[in-house]
Amino acid sequence: MTVATQTAPHPSAASAASETQRPGRLSRDDYLRGILDGDRRVLARAITLIESSRPRDRELAEQIVEDCLPHSGQALRIGVTGVPGAGKSSLIEALGRWLIAQPGQNLAVLAIDPSSQLSGGSILGDKTRMNLLSQNERAFIRPSPARDAFGGVAQHTREAILLCEAAGYRNIFVETVGVGQAETAVRDMVDFFLLVALAGVGDELQGIKRGAMELADLVTINKADDPNLVAAERARADAENALRFFPRSQSGWTPRALACSALTGAGVPELWTCIQEHAALTAANGWRSLARREQARRWMHELVEQELRRRFAAHPSVRSRLTTLEQDVLEGRTPAFRAARTLLEIYSGGK
Amino acid sequence: MTVATQTAPHPSAASAASETQRPGRLSRDDYLRGILDGDRRVLARAITLIESSRPRDRELAEQIVEDCLPHSGQALRIGVTGVPGAGKSSLIEALGRWLIAQPGQNLAVLAIDPSSQLSGGSILGDKTRMNLLSQNERAFIRPSPARDAFGGVAQHTREAILLCEAAGYRNIFVETVGVGQAETAVRDMVDFFLLVALAGVGDELQGIKRGAMELADLVTINKADDPNLVAAERARADAENALRFFPRSQSGWTPRALACSALTGAGVPELWTCIQEHAALTAANGWRSLARREQARRWMHELVEQELRRRFAAHPSVRSRLTTLEQDVLEGRTPAFRAARTLLEIYSGGK
Repeated sequence: MTVATQTAPHPSAASAASETQRPGRLSRDDYLRGILDGDRRVLARAITLIESSRPRDRELAEQIVEDCLPHSGQALRIGVTGVPGAGKSSLIEALGRWLIAQPGQNLAVLAIDPSSQLSGGSILGDKTRMNLLSQNERAFIRPSPARDAFGGVAQHTREAILLCEAAGYRNIFVETVGVGQAETAVRDMVDFFLLVALAGVGDELQGIKRGAMELADLVTINKADDPNLVAAERARADAENALRFFPRSQSGWTPRALACSALTGAGVPELWTCIQEHAALTAANGWRSLARREQARRWMHELVEQELRRRFAAHPSVRSRLTTLEQDVLEGRTPAFRAARTLLEIYSGGK
Repeated sequence: MTVATQTAPHPSAASAASETQRPGRLSRDDYLRGILDGDRRVLARAITLIESSRPRDRELAEQIVEDCLPHSGQALRIGVTGVPGAGKSSLIEALGRWLIAQPGQNLAVLAIDPSSQLSGGSILGDKTRMNLLSQNERAFIRPSPARDAFGGVAQHTREAILLCEAAGYRNIFVETVGVGQAETAVRDMVDFFLLVALAGVGDELQGIKRGAMELADLVTINKADDPNLVAAERARADAENALRFFPRSQSGWTPRALACSALTGAGVPELWTCIQEHAALTAANGWRSLARREQARRWMHELVEQELRRRFAAHPSVRSRLTTLEQDVLEGRTPAFRAARTLLEIYSGGK
């Protein structure tokens, strides 16, 4: 993707340093200075660099992330998930507009789209989304990358969070876009997990993806506006009831269910109050920092395992035998452990 | 563990072939013949061999599993999970006793205990459990291994399922024992997943482990006997309601909630009817064989990844640097990707 799909910089943004106006490559120092100054164009270019698959870009990108690391960690990281059509973007827009009306608040919105590798593009790339919010200088809206392996998207989003924090954004929203299984990956990079659902036909809850409910710190029933008020309240009570079936999180937080309307703004302040209460609790009991440390540790191990798997799958002799052996296992001709051992022997022998 | 902890062979068991009475090592052929004859002592010894960590035993064990593979696959594989105290064993005993009273039915019960590596032993090793059932020749009760890595337990249980099937058992119950996270591993080796829960104080459901509900094909509220009948029915209705929040499984099956009592036997035949209906549905729509093929394929890939991780972790230079790098990541001094890359470079360089 190119910088052209970025949010247009606000003309009055004091941080739009002149050096970013000139074309051409920025240095490692340019990037760090620009980001720490809160220069949105430099931040946007740095994230583009993060998403690049060119080795030279990647090297610079990693240096920038390392430079930003000591300046990161101050923001509240909020994951937002829900099926397409639940109104995640509208809700983030409503929440964001309410938020930036509060003194000293600002936000960045990042999107993670596991399905973009299939669809070849993300609906968030559509510049009309979050229209009003994106025109405000206190909001930084970042569309999701057009194409990438899912592991890559998760990796880049984690890095983009760090850069946004170094750029001074106090609230980072990570929105899942598309139809893939991004929930667990997003849960593992945020402090708070918001699940957006809808009241269905009748009194049932709609649009809860498998496994999403138990990750939620807050389930919000969106579109709680006329004539859906009664159905929304019923769905909210349903969701609250269902949340009881999941054991208490180790954070000490009891997940809640709230109704809200991105259209009318009803329930949006209460939603933010809930997020703040969670933040206060987990700051006081030490859970947030503990969880973040553990997230970083897991991230490291995941990257190692990803690469070990990649090397294995890329091995020429493994590649040439894998399909046949897999077929033998599928048809019950070979036990799984025998096929696994054969592959591992091929892998070791071929070194 | 030794054979001594096995269920005592029933004196009238026609399948107790004479060759198993003599001590000493059985040959690959002895094992296959004994298992196919339904000889319980040979089956028990073969499973002990599977659980052995001695390379010579392991080699023979894998040959036996391979030999049994063409004779396996005919049983219904049923996973049973729930927190300690929910009454899983009593329920399996009640269900098993009811089952073997039906013409032509028999069952094997295997235990998977991810916590046994910590506790140094499993409560199922206690011979008083499933007392009545274990005295019946149509039931084969296998305690869980005393010590093993969790991945190993899952692997051995999968293999033990195949042997029990080759020995002619038509129903294999895999019970999770202890407090670990075995649910997903068990879900991935069975056709049907039964979650045992209890009515709590008040009207709430008790003893649902995180993530277990969405794996369940059937939630059963145990101990639905006087004076808990009302509370159990309320918990059952609660569970049924909660199950609606999980999307329909691809199998086409709608998960159910039933109350039952291992003590009085109430609800046990209905429980079995439910399992039979699931079996009929998934046999008719092809889901069972599809799911089993996919389980075997995933098993192969898991074994490969386990071994890749093991090799990595066992590498001397990786081992000597891992703790320091992990600490740097935990303290936010190094980004996760940098630490991961350093470890991977050490690993490649040391080869």
